[in-house]
Amino acid sequence: MYRKEIKVMDCTVRDGGLMNNWQFSDEFVHAVYQACVSAGIDYMEIGYKSSESAFSRDEVGPWKFCDEKDLRRVVGDNNTPLKLSAMADIGRIAPEDITPAKDSVLDMIRVACYVHQVDKAIALAEICMDKGYEVCINLMAVSKVNEMALDEALQDISKTKVPIVYIVDSFGSMYSQNIEHLVRKYSAALPDKTLGIHAHNNMQLAMSNTITAIIENCNMLDATLLGMGRGAGNCPAEILIAFLKNPKYRLLPLLDVIQNHIQPLQKDIAWGYHIPYLITGALNEHPRSALKWMASETKDDFVSFMKEMHDYELLE
Amino acid sequence: MYRKEIKVMDCTVRDGGLMNNWQFSDEFVHAVYQACVSAGIDYMEIGYKSSESAFSRDEVGPWKFCDEKDLRRVVGDNNTPLKLSAMADIGRIAPEDITPAKDSVLDMIRVACYVHQVDKAIALAEICMDKGYEVCINLMAVSKVNEMALDEALQDISKTKVPIVYIVDSFGSMYSQNIEHLVRKYSAALPDKTLGIHAHNNMQLAMSNTITAIIENCNMLDATLLGMGRGAGNCPAEILIAFLKNPKYRLLPLLDVIQNHIQPLQKDIAWGYHIPYLITGALNEHPRSALKWMASETKDDFVSFMKEMHDYELLE
Repeated sequence: MYRKEIKVMDCTVRDGGLMNNWQFSDEFVHAVYQACVSAGIDYMEIGYKSSESAFSRDEVGPWKFCDEKDLRRVVGDNNTPLKLSAMADIGRIAPEDITPAKDSVLDMIRVACYVHQVDKAIALAEICMDKGYEVCINLMAVSKVNEMALDEALQDISKTKVPIVYIVDSFGSMYSQNIEHLVRKYSAALPDKTLGIHAHNNMQLAMSNTITAIIENCNMLDATLLGMGRGAGNCPAEILIAFLKNPKYRLLPLLDVIQNHIQPLQKDIAWGYHIPYLITGALNEHPRSALKWMASETKDDFVSFMKEMHDYELLE
Repeated sequence: MYRKEIKVMDCTVRDGGLMNNWQFSDEFVHAVYQACVSAGIDYMEIGYKSSESAFSRDEVGPWKFCDEKDLRRVVGDNNTPLKLSAMADIGRIAPEDITPAKDSVLDMIRVACYVHQVDKAIALAEICMDKGYEVCINLMAVSKVNEMALDEALQDISKTKVPIVYIVDSFGSMYSQNIEHLVRKYSAALPDKTLGIHAHNNMQLAMSNTITAIIENCNMLDATLLGMGRGAGNCPAEILIAFLKNPKYRLLPLLDVIQNHIQPLQKDIAWGYHIPYLITGALNEHPRSALKWMASETKDDFVSFMKEMHDYELLE
């Protein structure tokens, strides 16, 4: 499966932070950073870029804002081949929040949006490009979008200079044939752009969907250490690197940070495959109801959770 | 993905028993049985059929032998649509150990063998058919077999009346393209036979490999509750049933037995995705070294495990 264009992005801190409000210690973020550097990972997404007014610092940690001073405390000037990325959510950030790239240790801004926000996403992406960043657009939750709306959004993006567009399985509801269909659709609409894949593991298909995307010529691959991410989590970086067997990557640094920093977090943070996440994934629903259930005292009562779901009859 | 020919076999007790020497309580086996009946599962593999001389009852529980009296204590005369299966390993059973089907609650014997044992497997399968059983042959560990030997084994099986043959990913080392290749090979060699898939989850690809097999027209699908099985375990039955959305199946009874009987076992039995199983899977090795490591005090030292593996350089 060797292809020199393949690039892996570690999203452990950014997507994993959805499970602990980005309350990671500097030591933890540094350990992930150092592991990515040693493993030859191409990009590390170190958090979100957000407006101070959008979130309270009493609730969320520094990786929800990615201020330069916080970044540099952990990565210095990042004199390594690893590129650093931050995600920007439409509606949670203003252009003035974005430091010019020449003054930042960040290399890339990933603009995340729903399909109905694509015009705003393109506008923000163009501002980020003007400020000197690598940019991509991640179209979220496309498993719930009607295909005409998606086609129109792809046409809009095709007219821009945004070089990278992601297929995102936000709800972990897709399997190989869905991924194949979407990658082919995106490829046809965006023939000059690089495509990426960001998968969730509700049905234990995140790794497999990433492989399908590779087969279909996606070259930007999102993954997280031990799959740490919202709900069922993501494509596990250690499986992806073991699978790729690409000489530019090394697995041992990832195993080291997993055993010393990631796995110990599982005592307190219940990401990964759990039945409530399976149920929202199989129903093609946002995981928020499952996240709420998993935080309750009845988290192991799966039968009651399914009965509470609005359209549980589908799966009864 | 509806296809009326699809049949699901629950292997929780048989494959899960590899993790606890089949020391399940009658209550547990009965709960799995009752869940399979209520869920509309087609087959339940309730254990192995073995000679008394092959194993000591001091070490292994009754489901390693599947004596009629033990079976009937749990399932009575099994007056349900659920069919019961037992696996027979070549070299661990003699023809006289097999009760005629008319005197047994078992409906099927699955003969498991390595490719070099295929002649013995065919002989045993024919004895079982003569005794009145449904029969299939599971060719194990084919990811390590040279293709000429495999082709010859398939030719030998093609000349028999054995109606079902399984593709088995014993080491959890395969991904979609391997499964596709093997199912097409088996289909070409065995055009009149039903094919089955038995997957392991070392690289979190068991569910996905089962989907690939379905797409390629495999109709016998092995799965276990919460993936319980040797090492990284198997294709999780609850994901498979949620995915199939076939009207003959119900998910709720599976969730019920998972929350009340299966998940509680995870406190004591460490099946499922763990890094040592990933490493043996990615190296296409038998999981025995990972099982031994996971039973040791250093089980969470993944870096040392990888360094101990003979050919760890492949993944370094």
